[in-house]
Amino acid sequence: MSDYQPPLDDIRFVMDQVADLDSITASERFGHVDADTIHDVIAEVGRFMAEVIAPTNRDGDTIGSQWHAGDGGPATVVTPDSFKPAYAKWVESGFGAMPFDPDYGGAGFPWLSAIAVQELLTSANMALSLCPLLTQGAIDAIHAHGSDEQKATYLPKMLTGEWTGTMNLTEPQAGSDVGAVTSKAEPDAEASERWGADAYRITGQKIFITWGEQDFTDNIVHLVLARTPGSPPGTKGISMFLVPKFLLEADGSIGERNAAEVVSIEHKLGIHGSPTCVMSYDNAIGWLVGGEHEGMRNMFTMMNNARLSVGLEGLSISERAYQDALQYSQERLQGRAIGAPAGTSSPIIEHPDVRRMLMTQRSWIDAMRALVYTNAAALDRADAAKAAGDADQARFWQERADLLIPLTKGLCTDVGNEMTSLAVQIHGGMGYVEETGVAQHYRDARIAAIYEGTNGIQAADLVGRKLGMRGGGVVTDLLDECEQNAAATDQVDGMGAFGDRLRDAVATARTATAHLVEVGQSDPKSLLGSSSPYLRLLGTTVCAGLVAKGAVAAAERGDDFGRAKVVSAKFFGEQILPTVQGLLPAVQATADDLYALDAAQLG
Amino acid sequence: MSDYQPPLDDIRFVMDQVADLDSITASERFGHVDADTIHDVIAEVGRFMAEVIAPTNRDGDTIGSQWHAGDGGPATVVTPDSFKPAYAKWVESGFGAMPFDPDYGGAGFPWLSAIAVQELLTSANMALSLCPLLTQGAIDAIHAHGSDEQKATYLPKMLTGEWTGTMNLTEPQAGSDVGAVTSKAEPDAEASERWGADAYRITGQKIFITWGEQDFTDNIVHLVLARTPGSPPGTKGISMFLVPKFLLEADGSIGERNAAEVVSIEHKLGIHGSPTCVMSYDNAIGWLVGGEHEGMRNMFTMMNNARLSVGLEGLSISERAYQDALQYSQERLQGRAIGAPAGTSSPIIEHPDVRRMLMTQRSWIDAMRALVYTNAAALDRADAAKAAGDADQARFWQERADLLIPLTKGLCTDVGNEMTSLAVQIHGGMGYVEETGVAQHYRDARIAAIYEGTNGIQAADLVGRKLGMRGGGVVTDLLDECEQNAAATDQVDGMGAFGDRLRDAVATARTATAHLVEVGQSDPKSLLGSSSPYLRLLGTTVCAGLVAKGAVAAAERGDDFGRAKVVSAKFFGEQILPTVQGLLPAVQATADDLYALDAAQLG
Repeated sequence: MSDYQPPLDDIRFVMDQVADLDSITASERFGHVDADTIHDVIAEVGRFMAEVIAPTNRDGDTIGSQWHAGDGGPATVVTPDSFKPAYAKWVESGFGAMPFDPDYGGAGFPWLSAIAVQELLTSANMALSLCPLLTQGAIDAIHAHGSDEQKATYLPKMLTGEWTGTMNLTEPQAGSDVGAVTSKAEPDAEASERWGADAYRITGQKIFITWGEQDFTDNIVHLVLARTPGSPPGTKGISMFLVPKFLLEADGSIGERNAAEVVSIEHKLGIHGSPTCVMSYDNAIGWLVGGEHEGMRNMFTMMNNARLSVGLEGLSISERAYQDALQYSQERLQGRAIGAPAGTSSPIIEHPDVRRMLMTQRSWIDAMRALVYTNAAALDRADAAKAAGDADQARFWQERADLLIPLTKGLCTDVGNEMTSLAVQIHGGMGYVEETGVAQHYRDARIAAIYEGTNGIQAADLVGRKLGMRGGGVVTDLLDECEQNAAATDQVDGMGAFGDRLRDAVATARTATAHLVEVGQSDPKSLLGSSSPYLRLLGTTVCAGLVAKGAVAAAERGDDFGRAKVVSAKFFGEQILPTVQGLLPAVQATADDLYALDAAQLG
Repeated sequence: MSDYQPPLDDIRFVMDQVADLDSITASERFGHVDADTIHDVIAEVGRFMAEVIAPTNRDGDTIGSQWHAGDGGPATVVTPDSFKPAYAKWVESGFGAMPFDPDYGGAGFPWLSAIAVQELLTSANMALSLCPLLTQGAIDAIHAHGSDEQKATYLPKMLTGEWTGTMNLTEPQAGSDVGAVTSKAEPDAEASERWGADAYRITGQKIFITWGEQDFTDNIVHLVLARTPGSPPGTKGISMFLVPKFLLEADGSIGERNAAEVVSIEHKLGIHGSPTCVMSYDNAIGWLVGGEHEGMRNMFTMMNNARLSVGLEGLSISERAYQDALQYSQERLQGRAIGAPAGTSSPIIEHPDVRRMLMTQRSWIDAMRALVYTNAAALDRADAAKAAGDADQARFWQERADLLIPLTKGLCTDVGNEMTSLAVQIHGGMGYVEETGVAQHYRDARIAAIYEGTNGIQAADLVGRKLGMRGGGVVTDLLDECEQNAAATDQVDGMGAFGDRLRDAVATARTATAHLVEVGQSDPKSLLGSSSPYLRLLGTTVCAGLVAKGAVAAAERGDDFGRAKVVSAKFFGEQILPTVQGLLPAVQATADDLYALDAAQLG
């Protein structure tokens, strides 16, 4: 197990030279900050994560968060001892408030910089990172849809992390299908009088509630989806409620305990530090966030950010696992490398197949980081254009971001599983032993392809909603850019056949896209049946386009760092990008084959 | 979690129509059995596994085998309560003795039938299956190299499973590099007088000893690699010793406890039921198996069988996980399938992307089973030819088996990780919850790509030793057969472009092979750097060739079962086989890129 080294140079490189941070800070919207300040802060964040948060990661796995029956009162969740002081320092640092509205104590930094903080936090301790992550989602929802009073009351403490937030969507029968929610909310005059106007009583059970309960903050702000009396069925009848763990007195001080209780927590494959709660709301008091029946719209508001953040988890956990594998490969002596003196044992990093695994990780991590940060930058550009009143540009960048979201979430989380598996493999038998620590990354990573919309849902979103944006123009624009980047790499020494391979991949992606656009008109089953291979195909191509952009900038630096990035890019072009070609037939296959066997024949 | 259903029809199909069992039982060597008898026995084995062994699988994971400090005596391992009676019934059944020498109580059945028993046992409880598996390895070694007395003394009880066997190779500094073993063996006159001639005293510590200790048999026969005084360094100086847990009196009865003790067991990612022991030999008494310094040669004797069996684990665990996923997909209602009535929830098996995942598993399982059983049949054919004195045929089939071994081990265990991951994915959030049981398969499967030679070692074996056999003729013959099978599928209705795709894949495999043969002359680093993508490329192509053979036979049946196999084959050709094309550039890449960055630049 290695100490976590924040990859600050890599992050800075991608922010500056792939995601074009300068052009974001040049906008009026983000004109109050400059890139140097951002990088200074991120360097500080990196040190903080390495020193304060990363050392708690093993406790999260081995001790985990534990459920305790209430002794007369509500049940509790006890987190590992190391979590509390680490979280307190996180609150003290104020890093969590970085991207938020200055009116409520935020710094108004671009999302691009918040993503860097998240990368570092998630690599340091993925299980713990979910607590600020869910809080961020709740902040976004309240900020976008809450009343002025709700914002003034809750946001300042949520921005600092003094209070945390949760998202309560899922019920046993309502997972991917949020419209099947049955929790109820009824107006209650008495509660309104005592605790504030227009209060409801919320009743229902929610499952898979990340950080639904914990022991290190004074309050928790639950956002709960429920149905008001007489609501229409499906997603149209869902409203969002703010249900604080402790109700607040008129002066804002902590009042009575609300009837929101953790009934149990899940015993999971990984992220043991993060309590995944079954929450029971038993006539709990809450208030509408936004209008009645607007719960789903509210959810969509924060969905992009949440999915981007989960995609980022694939990157972060790959980075952490890679650092372990790289260190182990230098320490572990086994066998004699080609060319090494007879009778000696070599570090396994000298063996070609181990090198191949390390380079695969290095190269995919560079590619994923380019994709994730570019995605965040697109959100910032949309935001900046909106603030500047440039509707065309705002739409352009919003659609770009919307297209990238399922690619980031789906691709990076699938690849995260593969990269953590490679890290285990490099450790050999020791990788299978839990004490080594690398198996934790493999287990932790596995959730990211599942939650916040399974990767199948991401693929369906990509082909169902995103492909058709602007008549396919959003995809075309992105592929055009990839092709321009390919041309630019032709001038870079040492890139081999990268440009040609990228042009081939773009051509394949265009063929695949055109095929699905056509199929989508008439055959939705085939469209969906092809959606996952298409996501992988397009995502890998787009990654290569961003890697190309980075390689051109890297070559211009003329330093060791730049040369290393060119090598990593070349490797991506040679060993990873060509896999795109092998996916086209799966994209072009029809759904007939998928439905040719019934369940009995499948068995 | 589903009850395990032994896939008897699938097994029979592959044995009869892909691996040509009839031609094996037609040989003189195996003439004493017939295919019908074998299938009857396997059906019985299937029922036994489903009823007796499969229900113990969860206990293995949740309770696990536990280490207990000795109370004055040696330390012990306590297995889950359900293991003991299940194992006793396994011994009682006699199924374990099926493939072994009738002189020692075996039935002399072909290896092909033993592989079917192993598939069923491993699917039922992979952790428990390792105990008979290691015993089988020890039986092979003693049978091939032990003295007549050793064979007479130990084999009968090992064949029934009354006594189990272990393989003690690994030491902390000697994992993949077996030649680095430092355990010592010194001749001891006193022990020889008391316990039998030519006894040695063995001292050393061994790690990763599967089932090194347990509580359900009277004795354990450890085979231990160690160095005799004055031995040359490296693999040439290694000898193999038989070290029983309990020494035997002259009449064969159990005597004194030997100084072979379990010091601790590993806390692992999976296969918790299988105790992975650190074994300490402290002047333990043992005897040479085979000649001095022939330890490595002895190891190679059983390596093929052991690697085949581990490859099989990829298949077995994929099958078990698939059964869970298939059942869950029919029970779980979520969302409305295309074409389903408004307002209804559909079983998720109706969603195209879930179908795609299920078909991917179905299709890969069919392909892996074809590969594993064909590999076993090649061993039987070599055996039969040897017995018949046909040296040419014996060599042909031995080389065929030798080529298939790294493909089976490397490909099936990598694919096993992927298929169990798909099974988790189909379960959505429930898949990440341990109680569902599917995560156990994902964790259990992960070891198979690591032990019995990591998959990197398999790939090195493939390109370093197997590619050059008969000047490349062994590979060429196999690819020629794939091409013939491709031609045969052209006559099969409903196979689409399968034949063309297989011909393309064979052409790609030939290109890749020719490239590596050339590179191998001058550039061993590039050869090894390309070895893993090459293994995947060749293995997938060979699988498709066998799937093609099965499809032709399946189509001739004209029944539902046959039609389902054709659909599965078509899917393999359409969605899996084309990935071969995307691997060629990685095979053709040079190692320069792998070594362009030093460790500091990789970080």
